[in-house]
Amino acid sequence: MRLESFAAGRWVAPSGATRPIASAVTGETIAEAGSDGLDFARMVDYARDVGGPALRAMTFHQRAEKLKALAQYLNERRDSLYALSFLTGATKSDSLIDIDGGIGTLFVFSSKGRREMPDAHVYIDGDIEPLSRSGAFLGQHVCVPLQGVAVHINAFNFPVWGMLEKLAPTLLAGVPAIVKPATATSYLTEACFRMMIESGIFPEGSFQLIVGGTGDLLSRLGCQDVVSFTGSAQTALMLRSDRHLIENSVRFVAEQDSLNASILGPDAEPGSPEFDAFVREVVREMTVKAGQKCTAIRRIIVPDATVDAVIDAISGKLAKTVIGDPALEGTRMGALASAEQKADVLAKAAIIASECDRVFGDPDAFTVEGADAAKGAFVPPMLFRCADPDAATKTHDTEAFGPVSTVMGYRDLAHAVAIANRGQGSLVASVFTRDPAVARAVVLGAGAWHGRLYFANRDTGKEATGHGSPLPHMVHGGPGRAGGGEEMGGVRGVLHYMQRTAIQGSPDLLTAIGEAWVPGSREIQGNVHPFRRTFGDLQIGETLHTASREITLEDIEHFAHFTGDTFYAHMDEAAAAANPFFPGRVAHGYLLLSFAAGLFVDPDPGPVLANYGLDSLRFQKPVSPGDSIRVRLTVKQKTRRNADYGEVRWDVAVFNQNDEQVASYDLLTMNAM
Amino acid sequence: MRLESFAAGRWVAPSGATRPIASAVTGETIAEAGSDGLDFARMVDYARDVGGPALRAMTFHQRAEKLKALAQYLNERRDSLYALSFLTGATKSDSLIDIDGGIGTLFVFSSKGRREMPDAHVYIDGDIEPLSRSGAFLGQHVCVPLQGVAVHINAFNFPVWGMLEKLAPTLLAGVPAIVKPATATSYLTEACFRMMIESGIFPEGSFQLIVGGTGDLLSRLGCQDVVSFTGSAQTALMLRSDRHLIENSVRFVAEQDSLNASILGPDAEPGSPEFDAFVREVVREMTVKAGQKCTAIRRIIVPDATVDAVIDAISGKLAKTVIGDPALEGTRMGALASAEQKADVLAKAAIIASECDRVFGDPDAFTVEGADAAKGAFVPPMLFRCADPDAATKTHDTEAFGPVSTVMGYRDLAHAVAIANRGQGSLVASVFTRDPAVARAVVLGAGAWHGRLYFANRDTGKEATGHGSPLPHMVHGGPGRAGGGEEMGGVRGVLHYMQRTAIQGSPDLLTAIGEAWVPGSREIQGNVHPFRRTFGDLQIGETLHTASREITLEDIEHFAHFTGDTFYAHMDEAAAAANPFFPGRVAHGYLLLSFAAGLFVDPDPGPVLANYGLDSLRFQKPVSPGDSIRVRLTVKQKTRRNADYGEVRWDVAVFNQNDEQVASYDLLTMNAM
Repeated sequence: MRLESFAAGRWVAPSGATRPIASAVTGETIAEAGSDGLDFARMVDYARDVGGPALRAMTFHQRAEKLKALAQYLNERRDSLYALSFLTGATKSDSLIDIDGGIGTLFVFSSKGRREMPDAHVYIDGDIEPLSRSGAFLGQHVCVPLQGVAVHINAFNFPVWGMLEKLAPTLLAGVPAIVKPATATSYLTEACFRMMIESGIFPEGSFQLIVGGTGDLLSRLGCQDVVSFTGSAQTALMLRSDRHLIENSVRFVAEQDSLNASILGPDAEPGSPEFDAFVREVVREMTVKAGQKCTAIRRIIVPDATVDAVIDAISGKLAKTVIGDPALEGTRMGALASAEQKADVLAKAAIIASECDRVFGDPDAFTVEGADAAKGAFVPPMLFRCADPDAATKTHDTEAFGPVSTVMGYRDLAHAVAIANRGQGSLVASVFTRDPAVARAVVLGAGAWHGRLYFANRDTGKEATGHGSPLPHMVHGGPGRAGGGEEMGGVRGVLHYMQRTAIQGSPDLLTAIGEAWVPGSREIQGNVHPFRRTFGDLQIGETLHTASREITLEDIEHFAHFTGDTFYAHMDEAAAAANPFFPGRVAHGYLLLSFAAGLFVDPDPGPVLANYGLDSLRFQKPVSPGDSIRVRLTVKQKTRRNADYGEVRWDVAVFNQNDEQVASYDLLTMNAM
Repeated sequence: MRLESFAAGRWVAPSGATRPIASAVTGETIAEAGSDGLDFARMVDYARDVGGPALRAMTFHQRAEKLKALAQYLNERRDSLYALSFLTGATKSDSLIDIDGGIGTLFVFSSKGRREMPDAHVYIDGDIEPLSRSGAFLGQHVCVPLQGVAVHINAFNFPVWGMLEKLAPTLLAGVPAIVKPATATSYLTEACFRMMIESGIFPEGSFQLIVGGTGDLLSRLGCQDVVSFTGSAQTALMLRSDRHLIENSVRFVAEQDSLNASILGPDAEPGSPEFDAFVREVVREMTVKAGQKCTAIRRIIVPDATVDAVIDAISGKLAKTVIGDPALEGTRMGALASAEQKADVLAKAAIIASECDRVFGDPDAFTVEGADAAKGAFVPPMLFRCADPDAATKTHDTEAFGPVSTVMGYRDLAHAVAIANRGQGSLVASVFTRDPAVARAVVLGAGAWHGRLYFANRDTGKEATGHGSPLPHMVHGGPGRAGGGEEMGGVRGVLHYMQRTAIQGSPDLLTAIGEAWVPGSREIQGNVHPFRRTFGDLQIGETLHTASREITLEDIEHFAHFTGDTFYAHMDEAAAAANPFFPGRVAHGYLLLSFAAGLFVDPDPGPVLANYGLDSLRFQKPVSPGDSIRVRLTVKQKTRRNADYGEVRWDVAVFNQNDEQVASYDLLTMNAM
């Protein structure tokens, strides 16, 4: 099978030499890959000129809806991908991580896009900055999509997830992508990509695929483009040093394999649930995907006194791990992805062996079920013991990208943290502890060195998602050896494909830019009460000014006795006057809120269906008996939720008889279409 | 005067060769600079081992207080800095931007640190991520200080502001710095730095100074360190390509000079306030600091029809600009910083002249008041006209870092945006328009190419802070030619010196890590009502469970008539039942809030002084007549505000008789110490 690339709207077969791709299990050639004949300049132009404008024409919510549709489309067709996945050496449960995990990432980004981003073209980042006394000149940060293309260079270990976890935030941002999977497993990526094209869900030009080398692609990129890389430190270094990328300030995000650690807490003694969970997790991380995970546990850091117990427990479980043809149901660990990977893992294991003892696993003597160990890329799990982690250097520096890990002992928690940090930056470190003080000390001591800190114990139990599982909600990436980059993390990951721009200007202009009403900008006043207007009719800036209402001492007393809130500031003149914030007895804040609603609510059935919340309420000035209040109610922002109704955010300000603002808040209502 | 460096806690004079520094005005040597003899490895160790731990031991608020104290200290002593500033070629008003602007930046970061960051050691980034069904396993992003050192490499044009705008966020983050000013104006930086050391406000090791070259400093850095650079694209490229920095994932932030544009809106016709403001701003940007600002307007983009009017108006004002000794009161524009800068500006102007006409200013014929034009680094303002901005290349690519700018015409707004984007990324573009549609179109079309978009018009008037003024509140930096970096922008700038880490774990551990109570974590229940406990006594997690109260139909009717909120969902059974969200008549949300307060408030005078607000209120389930509610009130977070009181944030949950949560919010109170 000659794999094809998808360039500038069509499938392109390699025009020149190709490279054979072997099955990880049998060693037989199963596909041919090559990118000769691709016009990379045209691909970049196509993304910029066709895909980008089409994506940017949509709102965040519209793009999020398409992510969901794509996830559903792939979900219905995923069975055919599992079959290909076995050829990569992955077991069925490995494939669930890759294929279902990838589809799940699309779902999560779709959901976050609709819940946490506006149904608009501009993302507002943070609060208004008041830059002037009168409020006539304000600041506001916004993010807009980059106008270039994202080049995604993915690793061989997750051919589907690797593609989808980068695509989801990119497309949600409104940026087209060119996907370049690692050749070794590109047949699986290509199969999934074909489904995406067939689905027709995303507009033309939204994504293209390169199977094979990238030719002169990188030299076509500029400051609106992003290169996002996952893979080895060596390849990352080569890309990162590229003169063209550097000279043109091309954004470069790297997520590199790292020497991730897992720490058994000082409180987690043998026999404790934490000890058992730790052992299970280490074994799982060693054997899932045959240890080919950028997040896998490479260093097992345990109290000196428990080193032997840990080694025994891990070895016992590893001994029961069935290695073999990943398609067989009983197989717990499949093959590495290729013969090259096997050679590399054995070479790295030998380096570790030069300063550590191998206490489990012999690459020259292990059993493979249902496959020919000589032809497939099989290795056994290998456990090492590092006698002196302070003196060791290679163990903190050498990553065998397979089922290989090293146990090392620590004296006290500070020592454990120091050992963990010897990895010089990692994607994740985990800690098995139930002691909040241990957790806090690890965050303060090690947080700066690890992109993720994962804490598990008896309380998190079966709900804990796993040391090695990057989640779309959480950032994935880390400092130093891990590449210094970040991916995912919900909206954070989307912003990597957007430009944050500081906007300064008048309230009117800021309202137009952000599609959200800014205090001080133009009020639209109609003849109809805004509660009588549908979601679709309401305009940003539409405003109601209410009549005013006096608040009497009787109102305050009545409210106090009715609600039971007889706080002295409302009830006792002398005591209230002694309070540093009040001139004497004052109205309850909740009385103001309630009276404000009484002033602005239009009681009859209409488009406003419910008040479902309130944000950022501040009482700015006390209201005394005899004061009067009135309300300004303005449509701030609208977010369509479904075909029937949407959310309206109202900016509410309450004033006293001297036109001083006494309270402000955002009111949230559900409004019919 | 031999300038000194400050290294590892002491002042160090150069031990070897030095380089003379000339007055910008007279050309006479005024100082000698050299860094021979500095032990850079020791400086880095000193920062990491002495400064870092001392800074990290403080909370954000404690560091913010020190920034304020430092700002006050420098403010009282700034007169002596003005005298030195004249020697750099700066007028008194130029010096205000540099010196007062730098001090002002310290004040703003101090204020933002106290208002927007917690009085704690860990910064919480975003909301809790629910990662499990039961809530036993959660996600939370936090930021912790990097454990290395920040190396600040500053430009010659703002010797004080350049130092302080980088130091403020760095120190607030809890990271020590090594400051390396540009040698040409380092005497002024050194004078300010001496004051900072003399003040004794920040702990030992918080900041060090290198006057002269950086030797092998960069090769000492690792993944916990940051290099933050401001200056030319050439120097940035050299640093950015440094093999050691790349190999070690050393964070690198660059803010480079760029070809910033100012656009006169299509609506801003000659005679309009926008036209006049535009002309004033262009002239100011050309002449302030003699045009030596990374944000200065280099390209003046105006409607084709107004090109002549704009050139006439700008030329008229430039003709009145008095050039001369910056120390003289009548001088409007001083000298460039050095003879080298003058040679460079003239060379770049000649490049621009190869494709544009010079319409104002002749470097061979201009008047200098009170100084010898042949000895000082004086140049006149020079205005060019570009007849065909689409055909031009050098004009969009050549930055003369002095009082040099080029006028070019556009056909329509899309053309103006395209021309602005031809700069390939800039720090700032400004637009003089009053039309919201123009503003929005510029943000969508040009936002991705410019780090800041500045809109001015008659509404912003005198309050507008100026095209060329980076503000500590707003991000400063930009894509592409501007370096692809970001500085300042309030807390955003602080986070550049911190590591964002994804935390996963149980509620109890997250509470300990973030010093903020997370729902589901341990409740502390005492014998005393929490309203009777002082700010100091209250513990995170301290919880009150109230009695319950039935809500009757009479309560709802009474509340409706009392407040005036007779919304049908509370009053009309049939109409309420027809609403998609309600089973029938329901209690007002504000009634729940008010009754909740009645349940938890302890009425007598005590440590709780006032309820000053409420955040994130959500009504989660309707409450019907006959339902009962009860409240859980838990101390979530504490923030000391002054010696007398602090803010307590309470997590409030309201439950019905079936223990279903019907409402939740954060309650804010002021509590006495």
